[in-house]
Amino acid sequence: MKLKEYFASVKGEIQERHFWKSVRCEFLGTLLYVLFGCAATVTWDRDNVDPNRILRISSSFGLIEFVLVSALSHASSSQFNPAVTLSLLCTKYISLFRATCYVFVQLVAALLSSAVLYGLVPEYSRQNLAVNEVNPGVSHAQAFGIEFLGTFIFVFSYFSSLRRKNEKLEPKALPCGVSIAAAHLFAAEATVCGINPARSLAPAIFHNAWSNHWIFWIGPFLGGIVGAFTFEYTRDCSIELRDPQT
Amino acid sequence: MKLKEYFASVKGEIQERHFWKSVRCEFLGTLLYVLFGCAATVTWDRDNVDPNRILRISSSFGLIEFVLVSALSHASSSQFNPAVTLSLLCTKYISLFRATCYVFVQLVAALLSSAVLYGLVPEYSRQNLAVNEVNPGVSHAQAFGIEFLGTFIFVFSYFSSLRRKNEKLEPKALPCGVSIAAAHLFAAEATVCGINPARSLAPAIFHNAWSNHWIFWIGPFLGGIVGAFTFEYTRDCSIELRDPQT
Amino acid sequence: MKLKEYFASVKGEIQERHFWKSVRCEFLGTLLYVLFGCAATVTWDRDNVDPNRILRISSSFGLIEFVLVSALSHASSSQFNPAVTLSLLCTKYISLFRATCYVFVQLVAALLSSAVLYGLVPEYSRQNLAVNEVNPGVSHAQAFGIEFLGTFIFVFSYFSSLRRKNEKLEPKALPCGVSIAAAHLFAAEATVCGINPARSLAPAIFHNAWSNHWIFWIGPFLGGIVGAFTFEYTRDCSIELRDPQT
Amino acid sequence: MKLKEYFASVKGEIQERHFWKSVRCEFLGTLLYVLFGCAATVTWDRDNVDPNRILRISSSFGLIEFVLVSALSHASSSQFNPAVTLSLLCTKYISLFRATCYVFVQLVAALLSSAVLYGLVPEYSRQNLAVNEVNPGVSHAQAFGIEFLGTFIFVFSYFSSLRRKNEKLEPKALPCGVSIAAAHLFAAEATVCGINPARSLAPAIFHNAWSNHWIFWIGPFLGGIVGAFTFEYTRDCSIELRDPQT
Repeated sequence: MKLKEYFASVKGEIQERHFWKSVRCEFLGTLLYVLFGCAATVTWDRDNVDPNRILRISSSFGLIEFVLVSALSHASSSQFNPAVTLSLLCTKYISLFRATCYVFVQLVAALLSSAVLYGLVPEYSRQNLAVNEVNPGVSHAQAFGIEFLGTFIFVFSYFSSLRRKNEKLEPKALPCGVSIAAAHLFAAEATVCGINPARSLAPAIFHNAWSNHWIFWIGPFLGGIVGAFTFEYTRDCSIELRDPQT
Repeated sequence: MKLKEYFASVKGEIQERHFWKSVRCEFLGTLLYVLFGCAATVTWDRDNVDPNRILRISSSFGLIEFVLVSALSHASSSQFNPAVTLSLLCTKYISLFRATCYVFVQLVAALLSSAVLYGLVPEYSRQNLAVNEVNPGVSHAQAFGIEFLGTFIFVFSYFSSLRRKNEKLEPKALPCGVSIAAAHLFAAEATVCGINPARSLAPAIFHNAWSNHWIFWIGPFLGGIVGAFTFEYTRDCSIELRDPQT
Repeated sequence: MKLKEYFASVKGEIQERHFWKSVRCEFLGTLLYVLFGCAATVTWDRDNVDPNRILRISSSFGLIEFVLVSALSHASSSQFNPAVTLSLLCTKYISLFRATCYVFVQLVAALLSSAVLYGLVPEYSRQNLAVNEVNPGVSHAQAFGIEFLGTFIFVFSYFSSLRRKNEKLEPKALPCGVSIAAAHLFAAEATVCGINPARSLAPAIFHNAWSNHWIFWIGPFLGGIVGAFTFEYTRDCSIELRDPQT
Repeated sequence: MKLKEYFASVKGEIQERHFWKSVRCEFLGTLLYVLFGCAATVTWDRDNVDPNRILRISSSFGLIEFVLVSALSHASSSQFNPAVTLSLLCTKYISLFRATCYVFVQLVAALLSSAVLYGLVPEYSRQNLAVNEVNPGVSHAQAFGIEFLGTFIFVFSYFSSLRRKNEKLEPKALPCGVSIAAAHLFAAEATVCGINPARSLAPAIFHNAWSNHWIFWIGPFLGGIVGAFTFEYTRDCSIELRDPQT
């Protein structure tokens, strides 16, 4: 009868009004995160590469993450990232059904976002637009380690900022935005910094660029899960997130 | 008798002491926003373009927005932007009469600001000073889309940070400043980033530069309205901004 | 008998234990502000000028202002600037005697700070170290206007963030730091950005560089006073800073 | 019998569950601080030095400090730095035994961190990776002064943000991160900015680079102690950190 109970709990979740709002917010948030973040990788000047490229990528992703978390955290814990969703699933903060729905809309949103960005930039800068590529001087194992560590610090910081408010988990915007910026400063030279499989998948589909694509899924997933459990291990017992407190 | 009632409500608004303070603050805020923001587009070095141009524009607009919202939000909801005012009108937060007054003083303030900036810079950098121009590699439709999205993220963030305090709507300074910086990082290469019709109109009048000027009105207006309704749609019902709460 | 009363109030102020702490904090704060801020103008590389010079100057001054205000605001309202002290005197927040003491220690601290910085940098970069100079393309009137406006935005923001706490005026660190950074982004190209007569006087004495020095006194003083009264004019009546509230 | 009492107090500390958590957090925090900070000094491009090098180093160290303090301050006062630990020991906030344990794990963590970083970067950029070197134009005394002042401002700011919460000392994340960034902007050109003996020791061991290594121990230690006592001297009596307050 376990399956029956499972379906009952899924049914209960679907009927919640807040569930659908969360799904919509995940869609909107991932769309804007990927769009405004990836736009910083565009080469607008036909002749030169921007000397501030790394600073621009880091600030764009960091600032947009701050904006989105502060605007949408009341609705869906502002995940916008399959690696975060998987980490929340593994630490049992969200149900399998909810995680599946979130990851699905995140991927669709990222794909839509890549299409919009493709449409917005000049033709000469559409080549491999925002694709996560491994720097030629960097080996696969190194790229994996960098993606792992970048996601680790972000998910670690995300979990450290989670608070329970009105029966919902809400992250704080500042640690999220700052850790996204730090991770991009760390990883942007080596891999253009994925740390978000949805952000990495969309340009790969669009430009059919699949070399080393596994790095941008396994790295963030492992980094996220390890980051989440590391923080859970250091968390003060006095903060009990799982039980609602008003 | 509807017209009579309307005039009565307008009369009531005019007689409020706070109304005139709001109008003065909108004037002052728009003046300083346009002045300190546009100053970052000036070429001070006769021979070179600053390699950090995009970072400077983004930080200047973002920092001054933060300063002004944190200083003036107690008085006029710190709009400083006809697109924000129109969005607040469409979502019925402010009256038509108030919106008209605000837009009028915003345009006058921006014009004054352009004159001051023109006076402050060396002669060799006065050519098309701070004019919003579409990058030659970017089509009109793309420029429209970029202005639309830049205003969308700002107004979305502005609405998300609105709180009711002492019967007045007050935005929070940090999300406003950060979203302004993110929007400028996104749009500065393509259109020098308008996302504020007052900021775009003033240099256009001053330098008689009207090519594609419609983009800097229709883009922000549509982006602002869509951003405002998008946030209203995700807003938690529990936050009731329209009814005063002390 | 007015003079007698005046001396009695001065005597009362001197006997306050907190008065001497404030004076010491003004000394320490100005010393660190001028030292860490001006260090960003040093040319460390013998052959090249740093392409990020303006960004470095702006962030150095902004970050150190944030650090100092957040550390010392409990003691002396974190002025560190004769223009701020004069503005507080004109708006009657502090007494003439206190203002004189503050300005005196600010000037001494800035001078000491210049000496320390001179000792810390390589010989080839000691030429006109951190001196405020008017850009050759900029006229005297323009330089004056720029110093005026830079101080205006800082003092306006400083006043807007003042709160009364335990019978003392305390500014908030974030608006102060951000407005200092915005003012330096605005003015650094034209005048190396003074907006603080103590910061301008010390290198001038040290390097005997007095050309246009009046600009760095009259500009900040007028800008500060106008900024202070502008904010006082927009201040909500409900916030009563002058009367102590616990 | 004094020794006996001492061992009893050590035994008491060891048996505290929170003590071991603090030690683990110091290990984790120092590991991540050194890793993400030092990664900004890596030359990824074989041919060019990044023109934004100083800005990247400053933002990387500042952002990661903010992330780590906001995530871990509930556990171990987020020291991650032998100079901070020594300052807390001298001001009697922590016991000698605790300080020794912290410094030991900090050094081990930094060494591990250097090994990880060495593994993650391309071969051509492993030469003297992240080693603190004195700029050839700068004398030993100058380098000492710069390390002293950089640590002074950080420890001063760290102490100013300490609050007692649930019987534990917790620093605030924003002043810590901002002062780390300010110190790196100040010192990165002259000494690559150590201000943390653990961060300086690890690359020195790894690359056997010991020239002037004393500067990166004596400078931070003296700067930290002087910074700590300077703040203690200005601290308001009303804030009593030593006695627990709930």
